Amino acid sequence: MADVATLVEQARQGRPRAVARLITLVENAAPELREVMAALAPYSGRAYTVGLTGSPGVGKSTSTSALVSAYRRLGKRVGVLAVDPSSPFSGGALLGDRVRMQEHATDPEVFIRSMATRGHLGGLSWAAPQALRVLDGAGCDVILVETVGVGQSEVEIAAQADTSVVLLAPGMGDGIQAAKAGILEIGDVFVVNKADRDGADATARELNHMLGLGESRQPGDWRPPIVKTVAARGEGVDELVEALEKHHGWLAETGELAVRRRRRAAQEVEAITLAALRARIGDLRGDRHLDALAGQVAEGTLDPYSAADRLVAELTG
Amino acid sequence: MADVATLVEQARQGRPRAVARLITLVENAAPELREVMAALAPYSGRAYTVGLTGSPGVGKSTSTSALVSAYRRLGKRVGVLAVDPSSPFSGGALLGDRVRMQEHATDPEVFIRSMATRGHLGGLSWAAPQALRVLDGAGCDVILVETVGVGQSEVEIAAQADTSVVLLAPGMGDGIQAAKAGILEIGDVFVVNKADRDGADATARELNHMLGLGESRQPGDWRPPIVKTVAARGEGVDELVEALEKHHGWLAETGELAVRRRRRAAQEVEAITLAALRARIGDLRGDRHLDALAGQVAEGTLDPYSAADRLVAELTG
Repeated sequence: MADVATLVEQARQGRPRAVARLITLVENAAPELREVMAALAPYSGRAYTVGLTGSPGVGKSTSTSALVSAYRRLGKRVGVLAVDPSSPFSGGALLGDRVRMQEHATDPEVFIRSMATRGHLGGLSWAAPQALRVLDGAGCDVILVETVGVGQSEVEIAAQADTSVVLLAPGMGDGIQAAKAGILEIGDVFVVNKADRDGADATARELNHMLGLGESRQPGDWRPPIVKTVAARGEGVDELVEALEKHHGWLAETGELAVRRRRRAAQEVEAITLAALRARIGDLRGDRHLDALAGQVAEGTLDPYSAADRLVAELTG
Repeated sequence: MADVATLVEQARQGRPRAVARLITLVENAAPELREVMAALAPYSGRAYTVGLTGSPGVGKSTSTSALVSAYRRLGKRVGVLAVDPSSPFSGGALLGDRVRMQEHATDPEVFIRSMATRGHLGGLSWAAPQALRVLDGAGCDVILVETVGVGQSEVEIAAQADTSVVLLAPGMGDGIQAAKAGILEIGDVFVVNKADRDGADATARELNHMLGLGESRQPGDWRPPIVKTVAARGEGVDELVEALEKHHGWLAETGELAVRRRRRAAQEVEAITLAALRARIGDLRGDRHLDALAGQVAEGTLDPYSAADRLVAELTG
């Protein structure tokens, strides 16, 4: 395989194969990653990242595809990262309907990548940011991060973007579910997709009401707008882009962009640190030490904290 | 507050207030926990634990309540732990409709507890097992662990039980969703609840088909049964208990029970170890070290791996 420096150089020139191979390295948690990330570090932070989250069936793929088209009309280079953290057990990544992305497949200014992050123990927190670094380094102006499903991991991924878009659709009882999943708190922009269906206005009203409930905003704070779209027909998508650009501007003006990115970097560093420490625990497991301790805990002859103390002592020696 | 030894002694006698206070200690990650767990260790491993998972709306609360009634008729002491890991952001725990549990509220042989584990960074893995230890120590014969929502965290919690029950309902398009969430892999017993509704047979057939697809079983392996219930009317619940008891017997006979419990203990010890290490990272953050590193990473003057290396070096001295 080409050496890392060459791959990074080719990715910076926007060569799709090099970009794809670097993201594969991220997905496989390859040892070369530290070299890749060191080479990419100076080229980080240019792309505007947008996370899209919402229940299955709200039209995330369609909306993402429509956003790609809209940003392409503005002449932007666009990256798409579809992250599926939902199945830590299954062998295959069910990444939903990628068919809708096909229309962009031959556009050299669009990079589309699906990534399964299941099995990255506690590590979603670093895998997605690193794939973003690759797309960022490849000169994408905008990166859309689409998550599959709704759950804590998905919410965490979406929350790492500069702007989090939460999608709903009418008649799915989404309101309450959204509140449960904590996605009201992370939404910077809300979309009621399939707005041509019955109940779209009611969904928007309910959402508006719920957003108002948690309101204790100061002047200058961001008030998440609610945009109605019919993504399959491209309706409302320009308005969505407008809302995104407005939020992007607000982030930059208020300094919140730097704050968010710094927080994201801190999470990433913390996650890599924990992964390294976890790997050391794994080494202990290899020599059956953790196994033996677990056996004692299961039998009740040792309590879990005392067992953990022994592991910590060995690790931090 | 009463000292830990007294609380544990009272919990062992089955006093509800002591049990509740110990679980509060778990929920708050209180420093006293290590003493509590040390005191409980010798009394662990008696209870049979059953995890219940499934999408919102399948009737988990109702099924749990029906199972409580069924086990009470058998003279068992029953614990119920309703875990909500779904919202790391919201201030309140939305624990669904606990009203259905009211009928058991005055039964001294039933312990019911809701627990919000959001905010337990990576720590769901230890909070639920420790609450189980409390209920186990309190002499519960059976502990039902009901998770709210379906996602990776919920699946992980359900998978930690001795037996995992996956609930579906007709007409919710659950089949495909179940496959996505990886819950087919963890189900030891499947329930098609609301079996009086249209489509119940189709759901059961689809499920049976999907279970067969992954089949590469050896003789003596467990074949997950599919039980049809109308939990709201108590129909099929005795059959469900029968299926659970059969699985319990199979676990014990094959030695799989000990294997699962040992694996659970290993996960718990590993999670506590990681939490301890994470706390040390937090201490570093306190003195602004992690913050400073994150700032450099966000600016691109340092790559995240080099930043993590410095943290690991400081932690493991």
